[in-house]
Amino acid sequence: MSRPTLAVILAAGEGTRMKSSLSKVLHAVAGRPMLAHVLASVRAAGIGDAAVVVGPGREDVAEVARKSFPGCSVFTQAERKGTGHAVLAAREALEGRKDVIVLYADTPLVQSRSIQALKAALEEGAHVAVLGFHTANPTGYGRLVIEDGALARIVEEKDATADQKVIGFCNGGLMALRGETSLSLLDAIGNANAKGEYYLTDAAEIAHGRGLKAVARPIAEEEVQGVNDRAQLAAAEAVMQTRLRTAAMKEGVTLVAPDTVFFSYDTVIGNDVVVEPNCWFGPGVIIESGAVIHAFSHLEGARVASGASVGPFARLRPGADLGRDVKVGNFVEIKAAQVEEGAKISHLSYIGDARVGAEANIGAGTITCNYDGYLKHRTDIGAGAFIGSNSALVAPVKVGDNANVGAGSVITRDVAGDALAVARGRQIEIAGWAKNYRAAKKAEKAAKAKR
Amino acid sequence: MSRPTLAVILAAGEGTRMKSSLSKVLHAVAGRPMLAHVLASVRAAGIGDAAVVVGPGREDVAEVARKSFPGCSVFTQAERKGTGHAVLAAREALEGRKDVIVLYADTPLVQSRSIQALKAALEEGAHVAVLGFHTANPTGYGRLVIEDGALARIVEEKDATADQKVIGFCNGGLMALRGETSLSLLDAIGNANAKGEYYLTDAAEIAHGRGLKAVARPIAEEEVQGVNDRAQLAAAEAVMQTRLRTAAMKEGVTLVAPDTVFFSYDTVIGNDVVVEPNCWFGPGVIIESGAVIHAFSHLEGARVASGASVGPFARLRPGADLGRDVKVGNFVEIKAAQVEEGAKISHLSYIGDARVGAEANIGAGTITCNYDGYLKHRTDIGAGAFIGSNSALVAPVKVGDNANVGAGSVITRDVAGDALAVARGRQIEIAGWAKNYRAAKKAEKAAKAKR
Amino acid sequence: MSRPTLAVILAAGEGTRMKSSLSKVLHAVAGRPMLAHVLASVRAAGIGDAAVVVGPGREDVAEVARKSFPGCSVFTQAERKGTGHAVLAAREALEGRKDVIVLYADTPLVQSRSIQALKAALEEGAHVAVLGFHTANPTGYGRLVIEDGALARIVEEKDATADQKVIGFCNGGLMALRGETSLSLLDAIGNANAKGEYYLTDAAEIAHGRGLKAVARPIAEEEVQGVNDRAQLAAAEAVMQTRLRTAAMKEGVTLVAPDTVFFSYDTVIGNDVVVEPNCWFGPGVIIESGAVIHAFSHLEGARVASGASVGPFARLRPGADLGRDVKVGNFVEIKAAQVEEGAKISHLSYIGDARVGAEANIGAGTITCNYDGYLKHRTDIGAGAFIGSNSALVAPVKVGDNANVGAGSVITRDVAGDALAVARGRQIEIAGWAKNYRAAKKAEKAAKAKR
Repeated sequence: MSRPTLAVILAAGEGTRMKSSLSKVLHAVAGRPMLAHVLASVRAAGIGDAAVVVGPGREDVAEVARKSFPGCSVFTQAERKGTGHAVLAAREALEGRKDVIVLYADTPLVQSRSIQALKAALEEGAHVAVLGFHTANPTGYGRLVIEDGALARIVEEKDATADQKVIGFCNGGLMALRGETSLSLLDAIGNANAKGEYYLTDAAEIAHGRGLKAVARPIAEEEVQGVNDRAQLAAAEAVMQTRLRTAAMKEGVTLVAPDTVFFSYDTVIGNDVVVEPNCWFGPGVIIESGAVIHAFSHLEGARVASGASVGPFARLRPGADLGRDVKVGNFVEIKAAQVEEGAKISHLSYIGDARVGAEANIGAGTITCNYDGYLKHRTDIGAGAFIGSNSALVAPVKVGDNANVGAGSVITRDVAGDALAVARGRQIEIAGWAKNYRAAKKAEKAAKAKR
Repeated sequence: MSRPTLAVILAAGEGTRMKSSLSKVLHAVAGRPMLAHVLASVRAAGIGDAAVVVGPGREDVAEVARKSFPGCSVFTQAERKGTGHAVLAAREALEGRKDVIVLYADTPLVQSRSIQALKAALEEGAHVAVLGFHTANPTGYGRLVIEDGALARIVEEKDATADQKVIGFCNGGLMALRGETSLSLLDAIGNANAKGEYYLTDAAEIAHGRGLKAVARPIAEEEVQGVNDRAQLAAAEAVMQTRLRTAAMKEGVTLVAPDTVFFSYDTVIGNDVVVEPNCWFGPGVIIESGAVIHAFSHLEGARVASGASVGPFARLRPGADLGRDVKVGNFVEIKAAQVEEGAKISHLSYIGDARVGAEANIGAGTITCNYDGYLKHRTDIGAGAFIGSNSALVAPVKVGDNANVGAGSVITRDVAGDALAVARGRQIEIAGWAKNYRAAKKAEKAAKAKR
Repeated sequence: MSRPTLAVILAAGEGTRMKSSLSKVLHAVAGRPMLAHVLASVRAAGIGDAAVVVGPGREDVAEVARKSFPGCSVFTQAERKGTGHAVLAAREALEGRKDVIVLYADTPLVQSRSIQALKAALEEGAHVAVLGFHTANPTGYGRLVIEDGALARIVEEKDATADQKVIGFCNGGLMALRGETSLSLLDAIGNANAKGEYYLTDAAEIAHGRGLKAVARPIAEEEVQGVNDRAQLAAAEAVMQTRLRTAAMKEGVTLVAPDTVFFSYDTVIGNDVVVEPNCWFGPGVIIESGAVIHAFSHLEGARVASGASVGPFARLRPGADLGRDVKVGNFVEIKAAQVEEGAKISHLSYIGDARVGAEANIGAGTITCNYDGYLKHRTDIGAGAFIGSNSALVAPVKVGDNANVGAGSVITRDVAGDALAVARGRQIEIAGWAKNYRAAKKAEKAAKAKR
């Protein structure tokens, strides 16, 4: 029996300790803005309605919110007067009387099962539910005061009695409010405190005081780890990477040195893939079973089919699409290019805006000249073609199936299938020239040194 | 007084949690299959006779066994009925009545000194000897029950009494059986248990019951760490790498960031070598004293002589042989090539199937075109030669001592010593062309944007 | 009230466990010799006078000392007779009766504030002051025996009573001696001990015995970590890197994976810089706010202006100076080159001894041929120029503003602004050639295989 639920994501924090011109909640973890992580967990928890509260003038944050969660509403918190005040910035959405789950855009590690635990608490009759974590060292955290199984209140460190200070069950921040009473509770929050702010945490005590059911559910401390500075951002990244690496290994991926492999939130990677140390996966990468990603490879927006081999020192940029058993070797960059089954691009090449046909062999130093300074053009290399080393293919240009291009050629016109194309100077030789040259250069160098 | 000894290596495990089409025991640690690690430790312990028990149809495992330990016998365990049953698959070898040491191909970290400790126990009169490790948290492990200094039995977790559960001395798996009684004990193992399997561990209790001497010897927990999934494979790799790094540093190698350097089991590296962060050593690498391996270098099957400098971003492939004071710089690949004393290949080059003479200077972007699509050919560059940048040397080809090759040349015929060879087009210039071109391209781009 | 102070740095240790031909104190941490680190902390503590004690024949150490701390005096300890003896090697400097602070060149982690704490102790009237660290496991360290708030003596492990062995406050090595009494105390140190050496630590007990004030001040254990072998060198590097990374993050730098980024002691890096995993910064790097350093980049002696993007797989060598919004992409090496605002060098290029004008576009595979085998020459590329891919620019050479160079050209003469220069062969095509070639080659390969 799923109750209609609205997620309210607070994304208005200034994040001054980030020392950044970018909004804190747009800083990325595993290749995705923190805000988008939270919205993804909301969606994964089965919640279809979200309201994002942003700071004044933060259209950039609103845009990421709308892109990450199409259909979400965006509200602006004009002044910063605390979390209770921030939630009420979404009053228009709250008036729908759906159950409300409040999340923070700067806690990107929260998982959908925890959001579901909050939903479940409301479904079981609670009016207020919070997530708390158990810790051996609670100093600095708000303590959850449990009385007769109910959450009586959340006490801040500075207000805690000696008895309360030993409580190791602490406020994780996330809170659920039952739709029927949510606005009434939120409106009851006052600002009679040192900072004159409205604290969402007060809702627990207010509900308890009214005889409404307030409860706490456990969550792992790791999930509610907030990000306020770059060190915490790095710490969140580390947790996320550990999750991604562990999941990959569980599915049968060999990570020779897991700590040196960086995945994106959306990396798809099949079993029996071997990833050597020091690889980087940007967003949008799919690696099929049995491929090998050698050390020092950098992939983004690329697909690598079964049996393919990438790197070391390879860069696959968006649109790189490697077929079965393709080999892309060292110091090779592939961009927006289909490389078909069994083709080989082993060294020092740039293949962009191109198709490389099956079993074609691209020599070392081959470059597709795809850009004329204004527009990009395509290169089409046929199946079984052999491109000699150090060749430049000036796009738009086609090399036919099974054609050969001589080493060092600059190909500006299409080459027919089965033909040989060569475009280079003839070799001339001047006997003894180098000997004389050396003598002259040595003299020049010596003269320079004297000056 | 060394007694004739047979090592029996159990390599028939299915390893389903690896989710791999490759047999578990063939997965590599530090560049060598786990099975080969165990066999190497067997040999290092002075044991010259080995029997490897593989699963049905596992010719690939048998092949690695024979290659790693020439002369070993290979037996197939037709059905999986437990470790006792697996050992008896090698009955033919056991009938030689040598002392037997049973090892597991999925515990690649076992060291030869531990195997020798088992041998020593038999030499001191034991009929059964096992290796046990001490742990603060024994839950889940078989406990070694010691009575009056003798090993009375090995008790599995589920069969352990409360008293036994607190025992922190646990079964490491490896077992030695005295030749005279080994078959008799193995044949006495029954399968009257929940799974209906024959457990090797029962041999201890059987021996003890017959009044034969059973003993336990200590081993570090790390050494008996088994590999059942990819996370454990990564953990074993980490232990092995720590061993290799520690050994290198002890010998006077500077590892600026040890955790980022990956060695192979057989890397040889001299003192006063400096290895910058993020380097990868595949099998077969020898680095002589005083060489520098800069960051982001990838070496395999290569030799680097004293005073040489490699990288950053260099790849040495098998057969790369760098002489004294050679410099190989960034984005350079060397394969099957002798680079003689003092030669320099500083940037963006591929040198394969070649010799580069002493003090030769290979310009940026030089490529040896060693492959014609069917066969590989050699390039020979003489001592003191100067290859201009962006040249292609189409093999087979020789450049004589002290010859010069002009930049951008495609060299298809041999060049005499002291000569200059040039093979490129003449420079022509069209005044104002670029200005007109830009105007035309801008118009084209604007037109495209409108469409 | 700052008293005139002399720092005495003991740099004569042999360091045999380093197994190095380089003096131990010259091994580098974060790109700087350990000795230079200690001298830098001395200077940062406001001390202008230093005496460095080196081993016999160690002119290399003396040179680093003089370069790191101009004006320092260098003394030779002819024989190794202990730390007290080593300090007295600088007797000539000590006779100036300045306050003395003794430091060790193999403890590169000591911070200036700790040196200032020693100075402050003397300013408060102490005759001897030492730095001690608190540790849970003091075994092996000298213990600081405090009596009535004064430092009564320093007791070595082997001489410690049971009561003293439980002391957790240990000798950090650094010592300050009041100028008026320093020589008198040092001269009073005897060598009546097992090794017959003169131990500086005895000065504390001697002072206390004379009724002079000896005190201990606390220091973090980390700061007095000594380096005696390569593992300890790596450990010191790790601590230094942690300091540098933490400082960068505090200033608003995103380090996606801090543990994989290696800074030099002098790296300057602005806020909102993003550094992807696996980057290496050698000495002399300045990165301005908002630049992005992609994974696998290697920088040394380079400046990167705001908005610029570097890598992945880029190498900036000394003298690389990237203007605003410049893009340097993969497999690109820049050396001694000004790259002006908005210029792009996206792939597989070597730009050395050059200027690249604003908004110029350098095609993939472009190489500045700056070296003729004897001398280096400059390449000047004008603003808005477009260099076609795979071109070689043979220096000295100029390409004018807004000029175009055709792909695959070898440019040996200056190109006028707005002109097009092309220097390459004409494309010819031989129909059917490749088909015949394949047939012939297949036959050849088959014949070879038969032999």
